[in-house]
Amino acid sequence: MSTLAADMREIGVRARAAARALANAEAAARTAGLEAMARQLIAQSDAILTANARDVARAKAAGLAESFIDRLLLDAERLGAIAEGVRVVAALPDPVGETLAEWTRPNGLKIARVRTPIGVIGMIFESRPNVAADAGALALRAGNAIVLRGGGDGLDSVTAIVAALRAGLSEAGMPADAIQSVPSADRGAVGLLLAGLDGSIDVIVPRGGKSLVARVQAEARVPVFAHLEGICHTYIHAGADLAKAVAITANAKMRRVSVCGATETLLIDRVVAAQMLPPIAAELVRLGCELRGDSEARAIVNMAVAEEADWRTEYLAPILSVRVVDDLDAAIAHIAAYGSQHTDCIVTEDGTAAARFLRDVDSAIVLHNASTQFADGGEFGFGAEIGIATGRLHARGPVGAEQLTTFKYVVRGDGQIR
Amino acid sequence: MSTLAADMREIGVRARAAARALANAEAAARTAGLEAMARQLIAQSDAILTANARDVARAKAAGLAESFIDRLLLDAERLGAIAEGVRVVAALPDPVGETLAEWTRPNGLKIARVRTPIGVIGMIFESRPNVAADAGALALRAGNAIVLRGGGDGLDSVTAIVAALRAGLSEAGMPADAIQSVPSADRGAVGLLLAGLDGSIDVIVPRGGKSLVARVQAEARVPVFAHLEGICHTYIHAGADLAKAVAITANAKMRRVSVCGATETLLIDRVVAAQMLPPIAAELVRLGCELRGDSEARAIVNMAVAEEADWRTEYLAPILSVRVVDDLDAAIAHIAAYGSQHTDCIVTEDGTAAARFLRDVDSAIVLHNASTQFADGGEFGFGAEIGIATGRLHARGPVGAEQLTTFKYVVRGDGQIR
Repeated sequence: MSTLAADMREIGVRARAAARALANAEAAARTAGLEAMARQLIAQSDAILTANARDVARAKAAGLAESFIDRLLLDAERLGAIAEGVRVVAALPDPVGETLAEWTRPNGLKIARVRTPIGVIGMIFESRPNVAADAGALALRAGNAIVLRGGGDGLDSVTAIVAALRAGLSEAGMPADAIQSVPSADRGAVGLLLAGLDGSIDVIVPRGGKSLVARVQAEARVPVFAHLEGICHTYIHAGADLAKAVAITANAKMRRVSVCGATETLLIDRVVAAQMLPPIAAELVRLGCELRGDSEARAIVNMAVAEEADWRTEYLAPILSVRVVDDLDAAIAHIAAYGSQHTDCIVTEDGTAAARFLRDVDSAIVLHNASTQFADGGEFGFGAEIGIATGRLHARGPVGAEQLTTFKYVVRGDGQIR
Repeated sequence: MSTLAADMREIGVRARAAARALANAEAAARTAGLEAMARQLIAQSDAILTANARDVARAKAAGLAESFIDRLLLDAERLGAIAEGVRVVAALPDPVGETLAEWTRPNGLKIARVRTPIGVIGMIFESRPNVAADAGALALRAGNAIVLRGGGDGLDSVTAIVAALRAGLSEAGMPADAIQSVPSADRGAVGLLLAGLDGSIDVIVPRGGKSLVARVQAEARVPVFAHLEGICHTYIHAGADLAKAVAITANAKMRRVSVCGATETLLIDRVVAAQMLPPIAAELVRLGCELRGDSEARAIVNMAVAEEADWRTEYLAPILSVRVVDDLDAAIAHIAAYGSQHTDCIVTEDGTAAARFLRDVDSAIVLHNASTQFADGGEFGFGAEIGIATGRLHARGPVGAEQLTTFKYVVRGDGQIR
């Protein structure tokens, strides 16, 4: 076995042992660990910012893009926000041990479905070092251990942040190995994590660009919570209120164009297109959005041509594809054909149409009269999220502390036999 | 593409289309489909029993084992029981559309977590043809389509049963393609199912021997609900009631030795071993059980030697390994080291010890003072089960109709933007 493989295996063994200790600890102990983690992030500010400065200097020397360096960069204010994020998670309700359902059988057996931690989470991310603290905190809240593998460009920053988090765990009497980072930038480490470290990883959460997520989904031998892309739709139904249609579409596309919940395609019913598309388009153009339409949309508003590929494209940019549809059925069919089962919205005052859309669109999040940019764990009230999942099993939509748990059946009897 | 691959792909496309129709149907329509399926199983008895007779004749000519042929064999009575099983599922509550949680955000957004079907289930099983009807019914109750792949020896029986189920679906106006079976005994079909039929299969459920489950777990590129084995423990704590200890151990081991919930290892606290092991052992021996013990157990009761391998063995036979342990911690450590996270029981009158065992043993089902043979969907009140899962994600323990669903977030607004 290579040194890397042996090291990674050891990380897995330590994570599993820490996970058992965490799972059996009291909620108050996990909370104390989170609070100490937040304190240590501040106490170790100098070390973290010095490490970060080394990463940033290397990235500049390598000529990496301004936007990349901005994602990598930490300062006292950003570090304060990271520590505050950990405190928010410390204040969340502890999900472990919660009784999800309870019933008594005719033979007197009392059966309860009780939340338990998943176990060990593997997190693979790119340049933002704050992900280490966010993910570490959420994992711990749900009683899980986590193994972090950040991008090589942020290695020093992540190592320093993880050292602070581990110091906090130790201070609170929790096992420091609940949060570990892969010490090497060796790309082989990712492959070993995706293989599950000999059964030590229960689920992988990738966070980063499409190529990272695609690799994880293709290669992982353990379950993955992820979304490959967010091809989100806003659909203006015949019964839409015009003011809501304008405001929601503008916000859904332009509030932030780089988030996975940003709308990428506008669908609009033919009967209202001539009336509603011009004011919607005018507002989008005013905000700096490029429009690409089908022939019917272009007959109403002057815009570029949308090709077939546009319906399948997550722009993550100020570009919106626009399609005129026959009716609700056609909108649902378009979303089924081209969507990514992430987040889709209907704008209408017609309750029957809304109910059908909400039932028949098979996406993690379906909205009625609200911006697709609400696709976010914080906006859902989860306090934080480790990511958004478009898979169909276990976690779907924003993944918060609750979705990082599983359950077991606890059966209490008094001597029952079959 | 080979003919088989093209055929299988087509099966997947049809299953996905049927799943969409099923998901959007009313609960009453699914119920009507299930009731018609049960009627058609009886109406088509002659065809099913004739097909089964062909399978049985082939199996006898091939010299297959008596026990194998008994699992394959159908008669009017067994077919009646199969139809009755479908009727039981028809009477279960329909889980689709159930609101699991609901809350309102400070901005007025109403968020609901609503049950939806998973989509398309792939079921790979061995010789029992009744599995086709049981699994088809449960899948339909939860709004899913299913693709069935039974063992080659029961191909004619499964084909005839599936024809009856499909006739029932058609009679009730539901898409017949919600239940399909792989027409060929070609073993390549299993590989194609495990690869997910180009995204058409959402989850695979294997049902059969350990080698089948091991292959599915090793090769599947989609999630799997399964248990590889059930190495279940009954632990007699120092605070056990002797009468309960005897009755529970005897039942847990000997009621049926071939089920996954049968106890394979007895753990007993040292302080009560001399008192309690003799009567427990006497009852087991009376029932025909062979005992294999560690040195301490053998010093109390005459029995065979348990080797290290015995602690890791699922006998599925009238054999029980017996180990004397120091205390509760040692019992929990033994189960963590050797168990299969399936089903484990503590026998004690000490509530504190029971609570610790129920919390710290990380198995799908943990029991206090009740036989491990209660590990069964029917006994849990689920009406039926498609299998028992020891994985940690989505489904755990007996997999009934509820565990064959997922959820989506339905968000209702009145024009909210971020």
